[in-house]
Amino acid sequence: MSTATRTDWQTRTRPTDADGWIGRAAEVAGVLATDAAARDKAGATPYAEVQLLKDSGLVTLLGPAAHGGGGQDWPTAYRVVREIAKADGSIGQLLGYHYLWNWAARLVGTREQWEQVEADAARNQWFFGGAVNPRDNDVVVRDEGDSITFTGHKSFSTGSKVSDVTVLEGVFEGTDRHVFAIVPSDSEGLTFHDDWDNIGQRLTESGSVTLDGVTVPWAAAAGYVDKEFRPRVYNTLNVPTIQLVFVAFYLGIAAGALETAAVYTRHKSRSWLHGGFDAAVDEPHVIDTYGDLTAKLWAAEALADTVAAEGQRLHEDPDAVTEQARGEFEVRVAAVKARATDVALEVTSRIFEVTGARSTASAEGLDRFWRNVRTHTLHDPVAYKRREVGRHVLTAELPEPTWYS
Amino acid sequence: MSTATRTDWQTRTRPTDADGWIGRAAEVAGVLATDAAARDKAGATPYAEVQLLKDSGLVTLLGPAAHGGGGQDWPTAYRVVREIAKADGSIGQLLGYHYLWNWAARLVGTREQWEQVEADAARNQWFFGGAVNPRDNDVVVRDEGDSITFTGHKSFSTGSKVSDVTVLEGVFEGTDRHVFAIVPSDSEGLTFHDDWDNIGQRLTESGSVTLDGVTVPWAAAAGYVDKEFRPRVYNTLNVPTIQLVFVAFYLGIAAGALETAAVYTRHKSRSWLHGGFDAAVDEPHVIDTYGDLTAKLWAAEALADTVAAEGQRLHEDPDAVTEQARGEFEVRVAAVKARATDVALEVTSRIFEVTGARSTASAEGLDRFWRNVRTHTLHDPVAYKRREVGRHVLTAELPEPTWYS
Amino acid sequence: MSTATRTDWQTRTRPTDADGWIGRAAEVAGVLATDAAARDKAGATPYAEVQLLKDSGLVTLLGPAAHGGGGQDWPTAYRVVREIAKADGSIGQLLGYHYLWNWAARLVGTREQWEQVEADAARNQWFFGGAVNPRDNDVVVRDEGDSITFTGHKSFSTGSKVSDVTVLEGVFEGTDRHVFAIVPSDSEGLTFHDDWDNIGQRLTESGSVTLDGVTVPWAAAAGYVDKEFRPRVYNTLNVPTIQLVFVAFYLGIAAGALETAAVYTRHKSRSWLHGGFDAAVDEPHVIDTYGDLTAKLWAAEALADTVAAEGQRLHEDPDAVTEQARGEFEVRVAAVKARATDVALEVTSRIFEVTGARSTASAEGLDRFWRNVRTHTLHDPVAYKRREVGRHVLTAELPEPTWYS
Amino acid sequence: MSTATRTDWQTRTRPTDADGWIGRAAEVAGVLATDAAARDKAGATPYAEVQLLKDSGLVTLLGPAAHGGGGQDWPTAYRVVREIAKADGSIGQLLGYHYLWNWAARLVGTREQWEQVEADAARNQWFFGGAVNPRDNDVVVRDEGDSITFTGHKSFSTGSKVSDVTVLEGVFEGTDRHVFAIVPSDSEGLTFHDDWDNIGQRLTESGSVTLDGVTVPWAAAAGYVDKEFRPRVYNTLNVPTIQLVFVAFYLGIAAGALETAAVYTRHKSRSWLHGGFDAAVDEPHVIDTYGDLTAKLWAAEALADTVAAEGQRLHEDPDAVTEQARGEFEVRVAAVKARATDVALEVTSRIFEVTGARSTASAEGLDRFWRNVRTHTLHDPVAYKRREVGRHVLTAELPEPTWYS
Repeated sequence: MSTATRTDWQTRTRPTDADGWIGRAAEVAGVLATDAAARDKAGATPYAEVQLLKDSGLVTLLGPAAHGGGGQDWPTAYRVVREIAKADGSIGQLLGYHYLWNWAARLVGTREQWEQVEADAARNQWFFGGAVNPRDNDVVVRDEGDSITFTGHKSFSTGSKVSDVTVLEGVFEGTDRHVFAIVPSDSEGLTFHDDWDNIGQRLTESGSVTLDGVTVPWAAAAGYVDKEFRPRVYNTLNVPTIQLVFVAFYLGIAAGALETAAVYTRHKSRSWLHGGFDAAVDEPHVIDTYGDLTAKLWAAEALADTVAAEGQRLHEDPDAVTEQARGEFEVRVAAVKARATDVALEVTSRIFEVTGARSTASAEGLDRFWRNVRTHTLHDPVAYKRREVGRHVLTAELPEPTWYS
Repeated sequence: MSTATRTDWQTRTRPTDADGWIGRAAEVAGVLATDAAARDKAGATPYAEVQLLKDSGLVTLLGPAAHGGGGQDWPTAYRVVREIAKADGSIGQLLGYHYLWNWAARLVGTREQWEQVEADAARNQWFFGGAVNPRDNDVVVRDEGDSITFTGHKSFSTGSKVSDVTVLEGVFEGTDRHVFAIVPSDSEGLTFHDDWDNIGQRLTESGSVTLDGVTVPWAAAAGYVDKEFRPRVYNTLNVPTIQLVFVAFYLGIAAGALETAAVYTRHKSRSWLHGGFDAAVDEPHVIDTYGDLTAKLWAAEALADTVAAEGQRLHEDPDAVTEQARGEFEVRVAAVKARATDVALEVTSRIFEVTGARSTASAEGLDRFWRNVRTHTLHDPVAYKRREVGRHVLTAELPEPTWYS
Repeated sequence: MSTATRTDWQTRTRPTDADGWIGRAAEVAGVLATDAAARDKAGATPYAEVQLLKDSGLVTLLGPAAHGGGGQDWPTAYRVVREIAKADGSIGQLLGYHYLWNWAARLVGTREQWEQVEADAARNQWFFGGAVNPRDNDVVVRDEGDSITFTGHKSFSTGSKVSDVTVLEGVFEGTDRHVFAIVPSDSEGLTFHDDWDNIGQRLTESGSVTLDGVTVPWAAAAGYVDKEFRPRVYNTLNVPTIQLVFVAFYLGIAAGALETAAVYTRHKSRSWLHGGFDAAVDEPHVIDTYGDLTAKLWAAEALADTVAAEGQRLHEDPDAVTEQARGEFEVRVAAVKARATDVALEVTSRIFEVTGARSTASAEGLDRFWRNVRTHTLHDPVAYKRREVGRHVLTAELPEPTWYS
Repeated sequence: MSTATRTDWQTRTRPTDADGWIGRAAEVAGVLATDAAARDKAGATPYAEVQLLKDSGLVTLLGPAAHGGGGQDWPTAYRVVREIAKADGSIGQLLGYHYLWNWAARLVGTREQWEQVEADAARNQWFFGGAVNPRDNDVVVRDEGDSITFTGHKSFSTGSKVSDVTVLEGVFEGTDRHVFAIVPSDSEGLTFHDDWDNIGQRLTESGSVTLDGVTVPWAAAAGYVDKEFRPRVYNTLNVPTIQLVFVAFYLGIAAGALETAAVYTRHKSRSWLHGGFDAAVDEPHVIDTYGDLTAKLWAAEALADTVAAEGQRLHEDPDAVTEQARGEFEVRVAAVKARATDVALEVTSRIFEVTGARSTASAEGLDRFWRNVRTHTLHDPVAYKRREVGRHVLTAELPEPTWYS
């Protein structure tokens, strides 16, 4: 990563609109791209990269302007994640999840809670991680009077060592009531294990975490008032909102793959010796493949942007979100997920056909795009997303809200 | 077609915004859908259907409000074409081409010319046809002093017998200078042949036409001043603008296919006897296929809408259109064309897998969707659209403007 | 169809090996191809074409040599059906079903029964039709002492008016015991309705049939001895054997589509005016598409041939067929069906991309290939074939034998 | 790798027919599979694995029985390579290339030469490597009177350190005449560099090699008599023969991927929590995917086997090989290559959809299948294979023989 100092970023004017922020993200991506392949190989904890996200202002993009945040909305955040993921899928994921965990306060918390969290987060440039997995009831929460404690083990987290604060999730002992709370990442009883070793998204600090009686005051139990959770439909926007984050970095990775490949084809690829063309950029199959993949990617991006805008209308008036509106949004998001998954897998596997045999050298690192997409697109089976869409088309059925996508 | 009288439509208030017009189009489509399969089989000239387009106000959608037109823009027109094509691909094409030929005045004419044409067209509810084929130099134009004459034979036209006016195109004798002019469709010397007999888009009145000295005053030669054509970059928007019309009815036909199929699956399909499901809507492969096709269609629609909006920015400031902006727009449109083609072909062929064996009965007419898409998507080879996109991605090359897509 | 007289064929020596018979079939296909498009449009009952199949010896291909038959095996019959279907999918289907109904005697009958049927069929050049649909219990069989009667209505049959004999199927009243019997097609009480009007395979005489007490002696009830059916595993080869017939004409239709298209591309297609190539056969996307489709077709053909050979080993020792061997064969056949279906649909839809816009003229009839494949591939949902394969791979489960594929 | 000693293998009876040898290969694959993922990660030179290939007799499979070889033919060798590649793509490639370099004597040498080489190779269990790259004229050959010398640098070789003998290739100085010769791998002047570091086929010892005046007697210059090369059509079978070797290990890798995935799905995959199924093997999308991928793989395998048999007819009568027969064979092989490439890429990428998120753990090593296929399928652009097929279908053109596929 190049050596623009923190001061450089801090002395610059912050962008004031969406295009400005997306441009800023592209600039940061330019920095990250310089050593992305090497960083992926090294697998070191991305402290410097997270610091860059802070210095450039991207970490506080969604934060209230009154407290130093960028004051932007989700569609812009998705675009920013996409830009970052073009350069580095792991950092894109870290940033996207950060936005989510930060927003979790608003998702499930009371107004008082989330206003406080958002102000604190913006002022202190908190980077959020999460130890949240509502799929498995793996963390027990106990009521200790004024406080609650979290105890258990989660197979996966995100952000861990690079985060300032972590969103915890657990289930009250003997119930099926989930509770979320934000704690400092260096809280007593919270231990991050360095055991994420998967084929892709290698720098996401997604290892397991042990919670040994991590204590949180009742006041920090998101959405709980007098020890009772106050549900509203807006709470159920978790799945579509997070899925659009996933999509953002899938599409970013795919776009990064295509751009990286194009540079390679232009400058390094050799045309086929029996093909009759001097340059690879003149070979019909090369041109056709770039045309085909680009068109597919653009269509997925357009759908992602369109559906993000649809979602934003829900975020802007949380109390007005109905089950019908929420359900239709999730169906649209499910379709985005399906397209982004297919397209990102196709792009990241087929780029090699237009870069050629020598581009498989490990030093080029062109396989990281496919490994990154392949790894995270399995988070939840995309077949069930197609099922949600298909059921809705056939029977008007709405997907049932769940804590886990 | 149901029997809503002309009076019914005329007594109703005209829509005033895009959503209103799209809703109006959906309503018209509802009427057209009632006998679309039978109409396709009968193959009769769609006089009544064109009258319906006039009565409902759709024909003058793009016309100036001051002269009774709807005052809408291209993105809305594309959406309207899509709605109509859901019910009847041929009528969708006729309407889309009508918008194009009407707009041709603005594309190549002087301000004085197009203002006059648009006013006349809106006031008189002209339905436009075209005898335009810049691919083959098949019509010779001669300078007869105050007027010019068109003589020759074109293999294909659009609208012919159902049109009020027709756009002619030809090449000045011994030159490569094209000229366009609008004439009454019943002009002396203009003969439409009833010889369009293709597997799809059967009602588009696309037969050949003979021009035997059709005479037009010089003043009507679009864009000519003192017998010289005054070119500007805006003239070259013909291809991307028309291609988005094509895309509009491809996507409409695909959406219509999917909706028609869904009705069939719900009400007529039998679940497979050895499958273990009582209803076809519960069979996994049926649900998955609807989910997959819907997601693909939505992505193509989103890209079409996005690119239509990009184009509208060019239409709104015609004098500001640069070659760079025009070229980038065409590349985007080429991508839309590629996606719409693939998706429409896939949807219209695969719907049978979710409607089942009995849905191949001729009386159902479910094959018309595929026949319609298959026929028109060959207008120009989509492979060259992918080539435009691929070349641009690789070398920043801009597509060369041509008179023919 | 050309006018080679019956005498011409009869004076020629019959082939004596598989290659000879496949060559003979190709020759017959050459005759059928001359007016296949026109015949499809006309939709007349193919009496002359069936007569040609008889005259050329193809009808008795599988019959015992001792009685004038060709003495060939199933793999050769599949290849012959493929050849015929290249020219005319309907005639290919009629011939394939004929082989099946003829073989039905051996499938379910006693040795005495099938030896008699095969001898009679070969000597008399019987063309077999079928009124068999074990899916719906639509025909009731009653025991009338020495004879049984069939009464009911079947939605579909095959062969009907062009057949000499017809295989009937029904269920004994109040039981689930199926019975099959061969009767003259002009039997009293047997009425073929001329109501097959579907988008494809239009000449297959697949209309509905009414059975009004059609009487058959008990001795003709296939496989029944003393009014009891004597089951054996070989009976359950019906589904894989018939599915390979389906595959044979799907692949034949696809090959015919590709060959017909190639002739068109060579002689009629125009290269794209902006593409820079003089001839369509030099355009990269045209060459690539032919290469891709051909490779896919060859792979499906190779699998079909391989699996036909695997099946032949079962047919050659009927008493040795085990449930395991039968099940593994059906799984292999299911895979063939899946591939043939996908490939035939892709080929028949994509040929237009290499023949071009004018090839959609109705007179060319190039859409008949897709209509034919699209229609029959829905006979049973191919998704359940993939399921059989998938289940077997995952759990070693064998498909359960059924009377209906 | 398990510890069956060399003695164990040596005391066992050698197989005597193709099925026996394929079974033997499957047995060896079983041994190799036990630590294939770990071996890929470690990237150590596979001395022990090559020794296993020798001990089991596979290395001399094609050698003359009179000298201790297996006396088998190419179709069997391809099947053996496929079996080995199921377990380890790198070892499959090494074995396949070994067969090729061993056969190179017969391809270009005089009868006297190849009989000697085959006898020596079988008796001594030589493992062959190659430093052959006719694409780039990177090695100069000089006539030194009784001997010739090879000097230059090749970017890639195969086998290198694990080989006993190496096939060299170069061009006579100032000419375009290629010459091949077999030398001991420890020849003076021959230096293998350990610089193969690509994303797949990591154990193939494919690094660069320096030739510094490696001396070979004229008598060892394959096919040269009196310092002149005696060409014959059989020499040009190099490309189709080697391409079928490539296909063999692509298909083997794909089959191995599918089998490995199926074991994972059965024993480790979790069904989706909201899907309503207890086990992953019961989930419709899982079953469907296995069915689809298996069918595709079987079709590619059937085509590979069919075309291998077609090729064997040429190998059996080398002097009878005509340019027409050779060309048609190469076209068929090109189609096999196209199908095997597509299918192997699809299978190796999609297996993750049926194994699930946790299967991306590095320890599982499931990505090695895709990395292996992705790497080697770029050896030469498959688009040109489709082109060969397409050109032949359209114009009967035969591919021009070249020294490089």
